[in-house]
Amino acid sequence: MSLSTPKPPSTHWRLRLHEIIFEADTPAGKAFDIILIGSILVSVIIVMLESIGRVRAVYGDELHLAELFFTVLFTVEYLLRLISVKRPLRYAGSFFGIVDILAILPTYLSLFVPGTQYLFTIRILRLLRIFRILKLSAYLSEATILTSALRASRRKISVFILTVLSLVVVLGSLMYIIEGEENGFDSIPTSIYWAIVTLTTVGYGDLSPQTPLGKALASLVMIMGYGIIAVPTGIVTVELSQAALKLKQAVSSQSCPSCGAEGHDFDAVFCKYCGTHL
Amino acid sequence: MSLSTPKPPSTHWRLRLHEIIFEADTPAGKAFDIILIGSILVSVIIVMLESIGRVRAVYGDELHLAELFFTVLFTVEYLLRLISVKRPLRYAGSFFGIVDILAILPTYLSLFVPGTQYLFTIRILRLLRIFRILKLSAYLSEATILTSALRASRRKISVFILTVLSLVVVLGSLMYIIEGEENGFDSIPTSIYWAIVTLTTVGYGDLSPQTPLGKALASLVMIMGYGIIAVPTGIVTVELSQAALKLKQAVSSQSCPSCGAEGHDFDAVFCKYCGTHL
Amino acid sequence: MSLSTPKPPSTHWRLRLHEIIFEADTPAGKAFDIILIGSILVSVIIVMLESIGRVRAVYGDELHLAELFFTVLFTVEYLLRLISVKRPLRYAGSFFGIVDILAILPTYLSLFVPGTQYLFTIRILRLLRIFRILKLSAYLSEATILTSALRASRRKISVFILTVLSLVVVLGSLMYIIEGEENGFDSIPTSIYWAIVTLTTVGYGDLSPQTPLGKALASLVMIMGYGIIAVPTGIVTVELSQAALKLKQAVSSQSCPSCGAEGHDFDAVFCKYCGTHL
Amino acid sequence: MSLSTPKPPSTHWRLRLHEIIFEADTPAGKAFDIILIGSILVSVIIVMLESIGRVRAVYGDELHLAELFFTVLFTVEYLLRLISVKRPLRYAGSFFGIVDILAILPTYLSLFVPGTQYLFTIRILRLLRIFRILKLSAYLSEATILTSALRASRRKISVFILTVLSLVVVLGSLMYIIEGEENGFDSIPTSIYWAIVTLTTVGYGDLSPQTPLGKALASLVMIMGYGIIAVPTGIVTVELSQAALKLKQAVSSQSCPSCGAEGHDFDAVFCKYCGTHL
Repeated sequence: MSLSTPKPPSTHWRLRLHEIIFEADTPAGKAFDIILIGSILVSVIIVMLESIGRVRAVYGDELHLAELFFTVLFTVEYLLRLISVKRPLRYAGSFFGIVDILAILPTYLSLFVPGTQYLFTIRILRLLRIFRILKLSAYLSEATILTSALRASRRKISVFILTVLSLVVVLGSLMYIIEGEENGFDSIPTSIYWAIVTLTTVGYGDLSPQTPLGKALASLVMIMGYGIIAVPTGIVTVELSQAALKLKQAVSSQSCPSCGAEGHDFDAVFCKYCGTHL
Repeated sequence: MSLSTPKPPSTHWRLRLHEIIFEADTPAGKAFDIILIGSILVSVIIVMLESIGRVRAVYGDELHLAELFFTVLFTVEYLLRLISVKRPLRYAGSFFGIVDILAILPTYLSLFVPGTQYLFTIRILRLLRIFRILKLSAYLSEATILTSALRASRRKISVFILTVLSLVVVLGSLMYIIEGEENGFDSIPTSIYWAIVTLTTVGYGDLSPQTPLGKALASLVMIMGYGIIAVPTGIVTVELSQAALKLKQAVSSQSCPSCGAEGHDFDAVFCKYCGTHL
Repeated sequence: MSLSTPKPPSTHWRLRLHEIIFEADTPAGKAFDIILIGSILVSVIIVMLESIGRVRAVYGDELHLAELFFTVLFTVEYLLRLISVKRPLRYAGSFFGIVDILAILPTYLSLFVPGTQYLFTIRILRLLRIFRILKLSAYLSEATILTSALRASRRKISVFILTVLSLVVVLGSLMYIIEGEENGFDSIPTSIYWAIVTLTTVGYGDLSPQTPLGKALASLVMIMGYGIIAVPTGIVTVELSQAALKLKQAVSSQSCPSCGAEGHDFDAVFCKYCGTHL
Repeated sequence: MSLSTPKPPSTHWRLRLHEIIFEADTPAGKAFDIILIGSILVSVIIVMLESIGRVRAVYGDELHLAELFFTVLFTVEYLLRLISVKRPLRYAGSFFGIVDILAILPTYLSLFVPGTQYLFTIRILRLLRIFRILKLSAYLSEATILTSALRASRRKISVFILTVLSLVVVLGSLMYIIEGEENGFDSIPTSIYWAIVTLTTVGYGDLSPQTPLGKALASLVMIMGYGIIAVPTGIVTVELSQAALKLKQAVSSQSCPSCGAEGHDFDAVFCKYCGTHL
């Protein structure tokens, strides 16, 4: 953002502020990001410590003060962010804008509703900014592959999840009828919870079939789970492999000397768009 | 279904009814589908609520009445479906025809056998119709890829499941001999249930080996399970990848009129091997 | 096995016997196989029933007699198999030969060592013969793909398993020091068992960390398990995909008109071995 | 290391020692490696046995002596290794150098801090040397594929793990607020531990949701876990497949001297595009 034309002072400090807060390339911006990430980590650890009964009994007041301090700090930071961007509303509505406001609300909320300060840990999501400090582009492209693969498979996965949910309702109802309330399957929602715990191979064991018929059905569900857990893995693997391929093909392209078109295959001898010899 | 020839009135309303009930493109058909899906969801939730003891104690009668109401509604809908199709028997024998009849039978059955009304939740399967309302073709093609991949891998998977079942019987018997009835492994079927719970990595913990030898065998089973759980995932991934490839290739195969080469891209205008206009 | 030359009678019945026992194409052979599979299933179910205390109390004698009957039956069948093959010793040493002898030994063994008759269920492995009756070739080629993929990945998997075993010993020892005997981790072998249960995501819960440090290490182990469980899946998927590819390529080959060589690529114009135009 | 020039005696025995200790091709080197691996296995088993209370009560002194013996043995071996290499410091800082020193330190440490001798099992890592004795190159190339695949996916996996860790902190905090201390979720760290146990599908069951809302959130987490566990599997599979491809391609790339085409098979003698002898 090196601008050669002179600027009015008010714009100048906004640009400078924007550079510090939003960019990670300059020394000031990098220092700001590192301090910010440190503050986030420390503040999340403070909330965690506060949740431990024995710690709260001894250091409750100190931790509460520290929490308040970080909330004020993050509030100031949030306001600075808002005034340093050209379109504050647009920033406030973006993913990180929402996370930022969620990161300061809980403490204010906890003045009225006790206990909500633990929601404070949502500010951990701000840590995802860490990729800006690390070798930015390399990590972002990896993240892009991952998210684009997940986005490409979103329809397959929603078909899959709807099918699994229907299955789980039917299996849960069957199990409720077979095992009944005396074996802990005391309602259909509870039985559906059991079916999810089993199909996903989590298997807490807080609920497990007691009757022979229930065990037989559970065995069937588990063997079905074998096949079912393979489906999302297969979907994501195929999409990841195609996303990686697409990225590679885009790079390995050769442009046509005549029409300039790209995206030719490795073994192409003639341009497939204009017929010129490559 | 726009027919230009005049129709006798009786056929006309059947066509109209068919359009409303079976199609999702017209406003009336879409409205019908949305109301139907709403009714299914509400009726399934009612059955779930009824299964919760505390809720049943207070609202038992109201829920029972609501359930009866939905059963009558779905019975009428089922009859309308039957008279609006040309071949009612063929519809009654199709997947959704069977689900439809299963969705209304339990309530009538529960008049004679108490408890069976909970099977009512099988009507959740009717929800799979939801894909008709959403962007139809896109979701159906995804579902087609998934089911065709699963169908293509059905032989591999049946070889796999038969092998796993044999393994599980042998492992269960060994465990029954090693651990014995005093450690909960009170019969071979119970031990087979344990082996399935372990191999599928569900691991409830309602049964777990107590003797050193049993723990050693269990460790072996778990490490085997590592490799075994990889097999269905591998099968489904490979089939999914081939199904996706086939879908892509089927559309794009076009041979060059001059050299006959195939495998051109969708957007190819000239043959990439000899430069002839495609 | 249609032989036109006349045979001495003794060889003739051996051939006939071999045809019935070992082949599934002729009506007699198919009938024999179906009866055999039925007998195996019934005999395994009998052993399972015998292992259930309440069933044994009532039908113990009948089940024991039935078990004896099947043992005699399988002994006769085993002897017939031996005399109908040309090289009995070679058959006895093959996979199915060993399974056959293991399937009859336990009952005789149980005359001296009570309890060993439950090993009888090993005869379930004989069920793998079922693939001979079903559409033989199709299933066998699927089984071949699976086994060849597993064989191709056997080195990678042994590197993997040795690494996991080393890891598990180190993690188990750490956990033994951290948690100690008062939390159930009463020896290093027990702790190794816990590490295997955790890394494979089985998670019985019969042993689980109680101290904060133990929980932190366990969390680390579980997140490592994430990556670790992905490795065998990846190995098997890649090998399966290559095995499927190899099978396909072998079929789509075109032989050279000049040297007769096969295995050319789809887009080959000239034979890669002798240079002849294909 | 066959050197034709004469050597001063001191260098000669160092070379000879290096050959025995570090190489596995000569008979002496192979014998040394086999004895070493046997000693490692025996010493690890001794530490394991010592950790079992009942065994320690009876054979405690013998085991302790044996442990001391192996520590002296491995100390001597470590010193021999150091004096037989040209750059002892560089060896001491390598992976196996560190493992070697870690393998002897615990016993000396346990003279001052009781209990630390169980860390002795870290010497199991020395077993990874076993690949040197087995068919070296074949296993090493497999190990290379595995490690290069894991290294290539290290960025994707670190993006993935950071995302999962953030998710787990948020989910743990939510669960702490929903379930609270009366249901065992007695602090945010404990709840995060629960979230990790659930997301990784380990599912001990030492902590499981008791309230309906908690069960609903847990169900959501488990279904998310479905998709999440698919991601590392997909990453590793794609990288493994590319690493295997790269290994294959690196060897087989040879361009045609006439038309310059590449991508010929290993066994190709003529170019498949223009028929020129390669």
